[in-house]
Amino acid sequence: MPLLLCPHCGVGMKEVERRGVLVDVCPQCGGVWLDRGELEKLLAEAREVERAYEAELEAYHRKEGKAYRKKGLMKRVLDLFD
Amino acid sequence: MPLLLCPHCGVGMKEVERRGVLVDVCPQCGGVWLDRGELEKLLAEAREVERAYEAELEAYHRKEGKAYRKKGLMKRVLDLFD
Repeated sequence: MPLLLCPHCGVGMKEVERRGVLVDVCPQCGGVWLDRGELEKLLAEAREVERAYEAELEAYHRKEGKAYRKKGLMKRVLDLFD
Repeated sequence: MPLLLCPHCGVGMKEVERRGVLVDVCPQCGGVWLDRGELEKLLAEAREVERAYEAELEAYHRKEGKAYRKKGLMKRVLDLFD
């Protein structure tokens, strides 16, 4: 893919990749661009992190014989991208 | 701020705002643009969610007299934007 230009500054953005997710970052204004596929990967990672926390909390509740109602706190962050 | 053009498609992006965070979304390719300030708000929200989960897990550990070592799972997601 050719170099993407920052929609704000018009300068070429720098590709940054970590854990298989690629974002383009503007070296001038620090804005970031995520294409749909990369955004989905990032959201999936965030959901996975949430699942891990919820699973551990659920285990504690179970141990105490209490029902656990998932918090889904990350939803309020991820909602932005629905 | 004038309408931003998608760096990929060149079409005008649509501003979407939720919980005080504003992103520009390309109606054509679904890519998203976050300026630095909006990205920081989003990262702060994600960190806050993580803090809430960790605090509850820590409370359970304390109840059992065990030390809790923070997991910091969200770090692996947020690291991308360092």
